[in-house]
Amino acid sequence: MASSSSLTSCTLHRDMSVPRVIKCHKEFICYQSSLLCKQSVHSTSISVSDGPTYLRFFPTEKALVWEQTRKFLPRNGSRCHALDFENPSSFSVGEKFQLDDVIEAQQFDRKILNAIFEVAHEMEKIEKNSPGSQILKGYLMATLFYEPSTRTRLSFESAMKRLGGEVLTTENAREFSSAAKGETLEDTIRTVEGYSDIIVMRHFESGAAKRAAATANIPIINAGDGPGQHPTQALLDVYTIGREIGKLDGIKVGLVGDLTNGRTVRSLAYLLAKYQDVTIYFVSPDVVKMKDDIKDYLTSKGVEWEESNDLMEVASKCDVVYQTRIQRERFGERIDLYEEARGKYIVDRDVLSVMQKHAVIMHPLPRLDEITVDVDADPRAAYFRQAKNGLYIRMALLKLLLVGW
Amino acid sequence: MASSSSLTSCTLHRDMSVPRVIKCHKEFICYQSSLLCKQSVHSTSISVSDGPTYLRFFPTEKALVWEQTRKFLPRNGSRCHALDFENPSSFSVGEKFQLDDVIEAQQFDRKILNAIFEVAHEMEKIEKNSPGSQILKGYLMATLFYEPSTRTRLSFESAMKRLGGEVLTTENAREFSSAAKGETLEDTIRTVEGYSDIIVMRHFESGAAKRAAATANIPIINAGDGPGQHPTQALLDVYTIGREIGKLDGIKVGLVGDLTNGRTVRSLAYLLAKYQDVTIYFVSPDVVKMKDDIKDYLTSKGVEWEESNDLMEVASKCDVVYQTRIQRERFGERIDLYEEARGKYIVDRDVLSVMQKHAVIMHPLPRLDEITVDVDADPRAAYFRQAKNGLYIRMALLKLLLVGW
Amino acid sequence: MASSSSLTSCTLHRDMSVPRVIKCHKEFICYQSSLLCKQSVHSTSISVSDGPTYLRFFPTEKALVWEQTRKFLPRNGSRCHALDFENPSSFSVGEKFQLDDVIEAQQFDRKILNAIFEVAHEMEKIEKNSPGSQILKGYLMATLFYEPSTRTRLSFESAMKRLGGEVLTTENAREFSSAAKGETLEDTIRTVEGYSDIIVMRHFESGAAKRAAATANIPIINAGDGPGQHPTQALLDVYTIGREIGKLDGIKVGLVGDLTNGRTVRSLAYLLAKYQDVTIYFVSPDVVKMKDDIKDYLTSKGVEWEESNDLMEVASKCDVVYQTRIQRERFGERIDLYEEARGKYIVDRDVLSVMQKHAVIMHPLPRLDEITVDVDADPRAAYFRQAKNGLYIRMALLKLLLVGW
Repeated sequence: MASSSSLTSCTLHRDMSVPRVIKCHKEFICYQSSLLCKQSVHSTSISVSDGPTYLRFFPTEKALVWEQTRKFLPRNGSRCHALDFENPSSFSVGEKFQLDDVIEAQQFDRKILNAIFEVAHEMEKIEKNSPGSQILKGYLMATLFYEPSTRTRLSFESAMKRLGGEVLTTENAREFSSAAKGETLEDTIRTVEGYSDIIVMRHFESGAAKRAAATANIPIINAGDGPGQHPTQALLDVYTIGREIGKLDGIKVGLVGDLTNGRTVRSLAYLLAKYQDVTIYFVSPDVVKMKDDIKDYLTSKGVEWEESNDLMEVASKCDVVYQTRIQRERFGERIDLYEEARGKYIVDRDVLSVMQKHAVIMHPLPRLDEITVDVDADPRAAYFRQAKNGLYIRMALLKLLLVGW
Repeated sequence: MASSSSLTSCTLHRDMSVPRVIKCHKEFICYQSSLLCKQSVHSTSISVSDGPTYLRFFPTEKALVWEQTRKFLPRNGSRCHALDFENPSSFSVGEKFQLDDVIEAQQFDRKILNAIFEVAHEMEKIEKNSPGSQILKGYLMATLFYEPSTRTRLSFESAMKRLGGEVLTTENAREFSSAAKGETLEDTIRTVEGYSDIIVMRHFESGAAKRAAATANIPIINAGDGPGQHPTQALLDVYTIGREIGKLDGIKVGLVGDLTNGRTVRSLAYLLAKYQDVTIYFVSPDVVKMKDDIKDYLTSKGVEWEESNDLMEVASKCDVVYQTRIQRERFGERIDLYEEARGKYIVDRDVLSVMQKHAVIMHPLPRLDEITVDVDADPRAAYFRQAKNGLYIRMALLKLLLVGW
Repeated sequence: MASSSSLTSCTLHRDMSVPRVIKCHKEFICYQSSLLCKQSVHSTSISVSDGPTYLRFFPTEKALVWEQTRKFLPRNGSRCHALDFENPSSFSVGEKFQLDDVIEAQQFDRKILNAIFEVAHEMEKIEKNSPGSQILKGYLMATLFYEPSTRTRLSFESAMKRLGGEVLTTENAREFSSAAKGETLEDTIRTVEGYSDIIVMRHFESGAAKRAAATANIPIINAGDGPGQHPTQALLDVYTIGREIGKLDGIKVGLVGDLTNGRTVRSLAYLLAKYQDVTIYFVSPDVVKMKDDIKDYLTSKGVEWEESNDLMEVASKCDVVYQTRIQRERFGERIDLYEEARGKYIVDRDVLSVMQKHAVIMHPLPRLDEITVDVDADPRAAYFRQAKNGLYIRMALLKLLLVGW
């Protein structure tokens, strides 16, 4: 919960809502009540009074700490959140680190990715009714879904329950009586944070998760906000490559299918750029090619990439063939274009036959027929293991956000 | 669970469904099977056989106790419930008291309100993973919502889980396959009570909660029945005033906004009449003024009240400014009237500037623009704390209904 | 978990998903990866390596065991399921037995029925917070409902929670984002089985449960698949007769109402044929008579049956009067036929008056007016106890499927 764990570990557990230390990078907004006692400290312990105490600690050169007594705290006088994650410094403080929110794939540097993956790997080993299965006992997660996404919701809820935590579910938050009556997202968040310790939010508007995080005093996880971000999918994709191939540096990845609209492949390309000697092949129908922004970004990071029309040739040299679904809804009335694009690059047993023994096929699911069913039985078909890895990644994130490293 | 706790404490926990002692005021109905062994007792201990035993105890002058053996119990031969809560005598028996159902604000006298608030205050102090957080372990609450109200549902479910209890959720009970097929509410209740220990019900029809309570052998909490009652909101409002102002006698409360249709302000006025030296100011557009029934009631109880057009003047002398939303849906096609009413009394920083230092602004939420967002950061903005208090009130009610004082 | 419990008890709990031993009768399909190490064993212990190990054990004369190391397991290379339950041999192995899936009423022989009922009867005795109430602690059940059935869902979820287990709920799996996008049931199952230990599925298509069971590596319970099966209802009906009448051999049962469309009465007739000296009376309007297939089956099994128009006469000699709802949706535009059929055989106090003292009235619920409300208070009205028995049957099945006998 704290950058320096000794600072807050005991005294902050006196109230039901989870105290958090908010770290802000580059910019932050702080509303503070005139009743708050503001102090300048650097890395010292704070003597806290008998009642519950809330701290806001900023590990910047200014190093401010706001101390609030119980009396003042409920007045909601202080909110502080990072508004800009684009180029955060590492979250680590000494050998520890603490996540505050999971908003977008860009917020993670390689060091944090590795730490998350390390925790996720530990999660794979947690046994039923072992002590590890109770580390989130007493914690309550709210799944606030403004659009249905049963797969993602179940994955998060399973993760929470596998760690002994509890869940409040709402799958139709859009019909949230108050939202329907015109309540702002911010007001909804302020209400729901009173009932829970962490909010997993799915929203139809890009940027909604960032707004929620700027409001909430508890951690927010973005489970997808419209055409925007779906960072836990990006994390599980990279984690799966690491688990399946055994390394992330020096790999060759073929991204296949709808590269224009698939936020999954865009995020994946972005994260792979953090590793060394990565080569990416784009294989897509002409109407849904990878956009220039990602290509330029890869080039700027020294990642080799090329476009290809030859799935067989790409498959034969890649470590990972990452297939995606051609999204019909993107084609409007041009069903003809959709049908043409859709049938162009199918992963079937022929593709399998040219792939290397250690290579794998991945897919974010759901799949239609872009991977044929007869591929499933091959050990190189990694997509259901990939889905399962989503569970471990989400367990890891919940642990890191709620109880820290 | 029992008026006299020694009477039932041990033996009654042998079955899964929670035994309850039903106290009836003024009227009651009792169906009893001819197989039941009826006895007249007054305040004596009952020797119970080895098997599970169910008791119905009526603390009236007739003091009947029905004892049922396991053999007879499942035959559902005995149901007994208060049908009239209008003027109940106090629920307390000696120094103890026991709630059976929470149906309407009118069922509570001042003594019971204080007892509930005392328990709610204890609930604020329950820490994660402390013994107090497990007092409802093993209990199962069903949320039977015939219309969605995510905010209220999450608040109840959080309350239950914060106390270690478990939840069965249904947010679309109206589409309950059986309800859609024409099943009566009574039949649904009889089925659901077989699966749970307490039912929290939201219904679209006024009086539905009372019907459910008359059927059920387990406690019912009314989470709003149509234009009727929403007693837990009324309780949390009064609790919040007590917590924020430090007293309930001798206070001045301004009720602002839609006073015709807002069931919240009507219930609040009703409950405030139980306290001494209360003054109430009604500030509302002409089309949504407080109705005469409440005014007459307040007068009959010696509560001072007056109507005012001057929000600034009222705000300057009140302890509580209770703002409400003008409900567009009440205006039908007269959007012009709605727009006029809506903009008339806005709580903004100007209103804040005349308010006393100790005074607070409350709102049942959701709010639109009847309180401007720049008010939120002021410590006197109590509405999000008010929402959080709903959690403590619901925790208290669940405790009182399931395990007693 | 295992046919021979010593075989798997310890080592198999190292992973989150529950290992199962799949027994196949008559036919099975097995996809196996070439990477799998196949062994022939009979009833020997297997030395397992340090990592988690998954076993598939077939208690046929061939007695194959597939052992998979952690490395190979996630590759999903092995799936094996019974596809034909029509005439299974008993599930018992020695004095033990193990259920794998609950797909249709026909899969149970009398021996297994008795075993399930014995466990259900134990479930009735489990007290709140007793050790028995925690036997499924750490287990996670997913309710995957492709059509809403709140009653059935709540019953299963209550059963799971009464045994200390946890639940992932989805009531609108049809709108499962992935299903809506065209994902196959098989892919959905493969994803959801990664998040849970058992899946309770309701589907709109006959045969869906069998398809799910053929895919899943965890147990599937059919909670109704379209016009097909609803085996847990059939089990609770037979269990209720046994509990109410005290025996299943030598009983007389009147099946009343819609015998054409009611899958409940059809399954019940099927299961009753497993008992001795059973007599069945069919009492139904002409338009909804029992079909010949069941009549022929009963005859072939030596069960006496007859059709009657005289409900009073049947009621006077039966042990069980099983009333059902005339389903309006089956009559299309012929409302006149529906109205005629509907009013023909009503169970009311007149029917009660001719029934024997020990006899009972049952109904699968929901009821409309085919049983009048004034019957409810009579101890022979067993239908709400019947609904409650559904809880015990489901608790028993969850126990048997997850931790075995």
